Amino acid sequence: MAHAPAAAADNDAPAVTQALARFVATHPSRGWNDAVEAEAHRTLLNWLGCAIGAAHHDAVSMALAACQVLQPAPQAAVLGRRERVDIGSAAFINGIASHTFDFDDTHLRTIIHPAGPVASALLSLGEHLKSPGRALIDALVLGIEVSCRLGNMVYPDHYDRGWHITGSTGVFGAAAGCARLLGLDEIGTQMALGIAASQPVGLREQFGSMTKPLHPGAAARVGLMAALLAREGYTSSLRSIEARRGWAQVVSTRFDWREATDGLGERFEISANSYKPYACGIVIHPSIEACVGLRAQGVAPSDVQRIELRVHPLVLELTGKSEPEDGLQAKFSVFHGCAAGLIFGRAGEAEFADAVVTQPAVIELRRRVHATAVDDIAEDAVNLTAWLVDGRQLQVRIDHAVGSSARPMSDEALDAKFMSLVAPVIGERCSKSLLRQCRGAADLSHVEELVALASN
Amino acid sequence: MAHAPAAAADNDAPAVTQALARFVATHPSRGWNDAVEAEAHRTLLNWLGCAIGAAHHDAVSMALAACQVLQPAPQAAVLGRRERVDIGSAAFINGIASHTFDFDDTHLRTIIHPAGPVASALLSLGEHLKSPGRALIDALVLGIEVSCRLGNMVYPDHYDRGWHITGSTGVFGAAAGCARLLGLDEIGTQMALGIAASQPVGLREQFGSMTKPLHPGAAARVGLMAALLAREGYTSSLRSIEARRGWAQVVSTRFDWREATDGLGERFEISANSYKPYACGIVIHPSIEACVGLRAQGVAPSDVQRIELRVHPLVLELTGKSEPEDGLQAKFSVFHGCAAGLIFGRAGEAEFADAVVTQPAVIELRRRVHATAVDDIAEDAVNLTAWLVDGRQLQVRIDHAVGSSARPMSDEALDAKFMSLVAPVIGERCSKSLLRQCRGAADLSHVEELVALASN
Repeated sequence: MAHAPAAAADNDAPAVTQALARFVATHPSRGWNDAVEAEAHRTLLNWLGCAIGAAHHDAVSMALAACQVLQPAPQAAVLGRRERVDIGSAAFINGIASHTFDFDDTHLRTIIHPAGPVASALLSLGEHLKSPGRALIDALVLGIEVSCRLGNMVYPDHYDRGWHITGSTGVFGAAAGCARLLGLDEIGTQMALGIAASQPVGLREQFGSMTKPLHPGAAARVGLMAALLAREGYTSSLRSIEARRGWAQVVSTRFDWREATDGLGERFEISANSYKPYACGIVIHPSIEACVGLRAQGVAPSDVQRIELRVHPLVLELTGKSEPEDGLQAKFSVFHGCAAGLIFGRAGEAEFADAVVTQPAVIELRRRVHATAVDDIAEDAVNLTAWLVDGRQLQVRIDHAVGSSARPMSDEALDAKFMSLVAPVIGERCSKSLLRQCRGAADLSHVEELVALASN
Repeated sequence: MAHAPAAAADNDAPAVTQALARFVATHPSRGWNDAVEAEAHRTLLNWLGCAIGAAHHDAVSMALAACQVLQPAPQAAVLGRRERVDIGSAAFINGIASHTFDFDDTHLRTIIHPAGPVASALLSLGEHLKSPGRALIDALVLGIEVSCRLGNMVYPDHYDRGWHITGSTGVFGAAAGCARLLGLDEIGTQMALGIAASQPVGLREQFGSMTKPLHPGAAARVGLMAALLAREGYTSSLRSIEARRGWAQVVSTRFDWREATDGLGERFEISANSYKPYACGIVIHPSIEACVGLRAQGVAPSDVQRIELRVHPLVLELTGKSEPEDGLQAKFSVFHGCAAGLIFGRAGEAEFADAVVTQPAVIELRRRVHATAVDDIAEDAVNLTAWLVDGRQLQVRIDHAVGSSARPMSDEALDAKFMSLVAPVIGERCSKSLLRQCRGAADLSHVEELVALASN
């Protein structure tokens, strides 16, 4: 059987697929500066915390139950649980878990949550292959590079059309990362990207249902299987991304090819990865932070007559749900986020529990929060005005919310977030050990050391 | 955990997802006339023949090898082979096999190959559930109804954009069929459709590589898993097809909602299913038939100076490859099809073997075939003019090729096609028994009787 047809010059697009494949197959191990290396570890830590934290959520338990119908071999860990499943199912389930709380990382320029598809595929495959930690970190950086660059290439048109860009670019990131971990050559990696290209995952219509977190999980599995297929010699187009009827032109009407390859190997998109202090869509964060600030000024919920937010238009487009009925829906409600911030001074997963979302006091405060979209405010900013029952009027202005590129979460805050997510699931002591292992992941002799701690 | 948000009236689209789900969940068993029932059996027979025929093709062996990395449980048959794998892998691999020869069924209006995704998912699940033959046939008719109606809804824009419509609608057909086989209710079926909606499969750029047949295989697996997830209570949008950022509007810019639901349960799309006498894209068939006719008039390859075809524009768009380098590429070459027809009098899988495609005599004749796209000729027609070396000029005109809706393949021709595909793999006697079982599939006490014969 011959390989797939050679690159047909059916349009003028540059050979993006080949360029990315060559980069993934040949870029040197740790071929980046210390800041990139550190960000890779922060990304891994944040992802692992989110996945373990959600280990017993209904979405994860249901996905596991569906996979168990297939009687999977116990090849890889389901994070935060005792069950073991085949590596494809593990990639799928851990990918779902990591995005279930909407607490995972964000590539701010594209709103991609890059770790979910990539790390979920890599940890399962790495456990199976007994890969060293160094190989895992390398594959994570390179996989995330591929998905975020393809995201840059098609954003915003692709997202505006309705694609959940995390899954639709995540298949490439997972395929690239797994191809690297398997040691595929340039052509093999091109085939892996090609097989993945035919299986983009994710509609924005699913926001508010369990199928949203399914997207990174399904993307992880697609990418993993694409790399395994390519290793066997399975063929695809060699121009699957840029061809006239290839991925970019099918899923988007506008794209800038240069975003895929300019400065490849010099700057790294993982440097622009960010982490959330609150367990919901990042566009709500400035508003929550403003309400936490209000509370810090001594304002109690009963003091408030009316809160008005002036926000970026995306806030209402993505999170304008005024009457959320459960926790999942509340993640898409800037009004609930504000109520949580003012009542509890935080908005972690606990503040998005169904029981909290349906509390009369929360509902009542939520209804006193109003929001107006304005054009002259940034996505990471908010102007809040509070009218109090005593007649006072207070202003809180956030120029850059914590977790924005201007104000990234500190290592200490990230560690605290990790502990708050993981300790309730695997215990305080085990969580601390895991945190240490994860901070030094590149030096682990193999990935299993990480997984062993993460799966009891 | 509450269900997903109720239908949000975010656009004026009718509740297509709900209507299809209700239909699948509640339409009576064998709620159609004898012609539909017969066509369902012809569809099953043709699909089974194609899948068994390709059982030992490289694409199938490679896909199987990749799945075996996951150490699958021996739950279901790989058709035409001894290996057994989990039901998800079986759906995937059998779906690939059934489309590998490009010899499977075609819903002519949309160029969907409907059986691949649907039957591949159903046979694996049916074997596992020990479903009766009646339930299999019911689910096959209903699953195919869903994928073809969604195809009608978005064709041709969706296909023109570059989607391989077999996989992008096949996820719904497989999900619907499996939901029926699992006995899901209306809401559960709606969720299964929703989970599938987020995972459309297939780029036309892959035509000519092994990733083309991967599309129905991946769609089969997506649909099967979507139904299993929905059974566990996994949620999705309830308007995943018609919502503003749902499937239809993300994968197409034009759609006619009425196609999805008008006359639902009264007319059945499987009635319009057709089967190929030649092992390649259906648009080439009139040209091959014309060359077979030329040969029947006593014309030998050495007699021919030049052949000119006047064809529908789609023929050159889809199968205009003038210098195919191997069997897979030759499936997209009307020129090779004509050469095979004239030299061998047929164009089965053997005539698309790499060794045939690269024969100097075949290459040489192929180069004497020329084609012009004209607007006033139907897709199932051709006008052929042959200039012979002795100075004669012959005309062959095909108004409706065999396999078109005007001239369907007879039962006898379909049986002969089945035997020619299956006997070389599982032997003459076993093939005959399987053919008998398949012709009476609705009466089988359970699906395993079919599978047992098909997997040795």
